[in-house]
Amino acid sequence: MTEPVAHAELAPARRGRPGYDPQQILAAAVELFIAHGYDATSVAAVAERLGLTKSALYHHYDSKEHLLRVALDEALGGLEGVLDERGARKGAAGARLEYVLRGAVRVLVERLPYVTLLLRVRGNSDVERAALERRRAFDHRITGLVRDAQGEGTVRADVDPSVATRLVFGMVNSIVEWYRPTGPEGAAELADDVLRIALDGLRTR
Amino acid sequence: MTEPVAHAELAPARRGRPGYDPQQILAAAVELFIAHGYDATSVAAVAERLGLTKSALYHHYDSKEHLLRVALDEALGGLEGVLDERGARKGAAGARLEYVLRGAVRVLVERLPYVTLLLRVRGNSDVERAALERRRAFDHRITGLVRDAQGEGTVRADVDPSVATRLVFGMVNSIVEWYRPTGPEGAAELADDVLRIALDGLRTR
Repeated sequence: MTEPVAHAELAPARRGRPGYDPQQILAAAVELFIAHGYDATSVAAVAERLGLTKSALYHHYDSKEHLLRVALDEALGGLEGVLDERGARKGAAGARLEYVLRGAVRVLVERLPYVTLLLRVRGNSDVERAALERRRAFDHRITGLVRDAQGEGTVRADVDPSVATRLVFGMVNSIVEWYRPTGPEGAAELADDVLRIALDGLRTR
Repeated sequence: MTEPVAHAELAPARRGRPGYDPQQILAAAVELFIAHGYDATSVAAVAERLGLTKSALYHHYDSKEHLLRVALDEALGGLEGVLDERGARKGAAGARLEYVLRGAVRVLVERLPYVTLLLRVRGNSDVERAALERRRAFDHRITGLVRDAQGEGTVRADVDPSVATRLVFGMVNSIVEWYRPTGPEGAAELADDVLRIALDGLRTR
């Protein structure tokens, strides 16, 4: 999500306006999209929340859809970035899968509102459909990783790789429903818990 | 969910109207609530979908909120019913937990639209808040079961019981996002997959 940050760096000093940068505008928009729904939120409502004029907001974002696109890219870019890291590309498939699961939890926690928004997308516009397509491509790569790990014998072969991917990511994604960064559990501890259950299960042996 | 069924049995024979019973009206309402959101769906839209007059619909349901209440009760009653079954009440805690997980998957599959609606409830009205309260009470009973199973040594003790419950039910609940009864996987097979991963994890040993 480099676009708005670069924009901020290039923006001239503002005069007589509260100093909101594009990232703060985006965060406020996402907060409203989550609270009231994307369709029910207007650009005017986002501007009002920040004490900005609509034209000041339009200086940074062309439209409500632009805000949505950048917000979804924040979530998807984070998840896709995990797959590009060395730990996800080198080594045994089982270890790479573990690396990716831990990374996905980290992205969820670090970009909680953006991933929350992504998980509510239903495909009602071109921007939403493009986001769903990227989610499917991400899931597809994870399914491939599960399949490879089954092939090498590190992941159980009695569950279909696509069902296993959906169930484990269902668990990971459910974190957005209840996790709050201010709570007792940190991101690393949460990732440990997810990996314990996803990889080794609840049952003692 | 006995109320509308009993209602249907007691209703006098209708004359000159399509023969919709309360359960069919409820199903149509839930379909629209899921597709367009509860707030955006009117009683008139539900009646129109069925080719009923609003007054014919009001013969069975007092209000849109009544439809929501009965729909959420369909989901919650199913889940709570699992906890009242013998397999959830007798025996070792680990076996009871396994029984409840399997039962929850069965309820999700059998009452898919109702549980989907339940999982979208955010607490915007008294009916929604009452449903959330029942969900919390259900989760609380599962957490107690996980804690008991940890105490007897059948469930790993290195994950907080409330976090373990949330993660495993996150996996179970995520089924509503992708499972379709017409697909290749039956409910029993899906429950097997959930139990394999939740209890024993993805990793081979």
